[in-house]
Amino acid sequence: MSTLNFAVTGNSATQTKYEGYARHFKITVDEPHALGGNDDAPNPVEYILTGYAGCLNVVVNLVAKELDIKINSLKIEISGDIDPARLLGTSFNNRAGFLSLKVDIDLDSDADEETKTLLFKQVKERCPVNDNLSNPTPIEYNIFATNLNLN
Amino acid sequence: MSTLNFAVTGNSATQTKYEGYARHFKITVDEPHALGGNDDAPNPVEYILTGYAGCLNVVVNLVAKELDIKINSLKIEISGDIDPARLLGTSFNNRAGFLSLKVDIDLDSDADEETKTLLFKQVKERCPVNDNLSNPTPIEYNIFATNLNLN
Repeated sequence: MSTLNFAVTGNSATQTKYEGYARHFKITVDEPHALGGNDDAPNPVEYILTGYAGCLNVVVNLVAKELDIKINSLKIEISGDIDPARLLGTSFNNRAGFLSLKVDIDLDSDADEETKTLLFKQVKERCPVNDNLSNPTPIEYNIFATNLNLN
Repeated sequence: MSTLNFAVTGNSATQTKYEGYARHFKITVDEPHALGGNDDAPNPVEYILTGYAGCLNVVVNLVAKELDIKINSLKIEISGDIDPARLLGTSFNNRAGFLSLKVDIDLDSDADEETKTLLFKQVKERCPVNDNLSNPTPIEYNIFATNLNLN
């Protein structure tokens, strides 16, 4: 299989609300009232956590199938703290994003200890979102900035 | 302001579908048919791209306000390629996640060139999701794996 392309495109609807499209899905992003939004949708970093949890679900199930593990239930919770100072421009001491992330996985299965260890070792190595959050990713920025004054 | 905590919790509904909750919002993740899912919702990495675009929207608007820039319109598109080989376990030559990301921002504003340069320099430095995707983030895993055979 060759590489797969994923894309989201959308527009700023308000200062906090983004209306994006991924294929035939519309996804709205907003901020809670405490962060200046209208709380119409999950906020940006909540989508990051959800994408990460959703990715772990796919990979745990995929690898479990390979290892012939029967999953009875699988609960995934991800959380993290952000210091908003850099975002707000009041201090640049801490990084802008999550200082760290905590992944809690509660798996009920028929696997023995050794197989479970192998399962989660494989999951960490093969989960796309785990990779992009654990390791740096090159980002290319293309800014098309129309200046009305120059038109 | 002290640090802010964000969290998502949820369960595996199928091998590809995750039903998560962020505060009072339910967010469903699934995979397209081509990736073995039922295509009931955006897939994990589409949520990553959406969270990133939503975050850029917030920070562009925030910094523009500080710089007294009037935004007429703002379009944000983010895309990237993934080699699914590592996820599928068929090859470990490439990384698991996005090989790179491309951010296209189309801003229509009344800002001059110098101010726009300052705007986007600040946006890159202050956007939380940009930070977590550009730079490594420490991740703590807690695996609670019940083994039915041992009960």
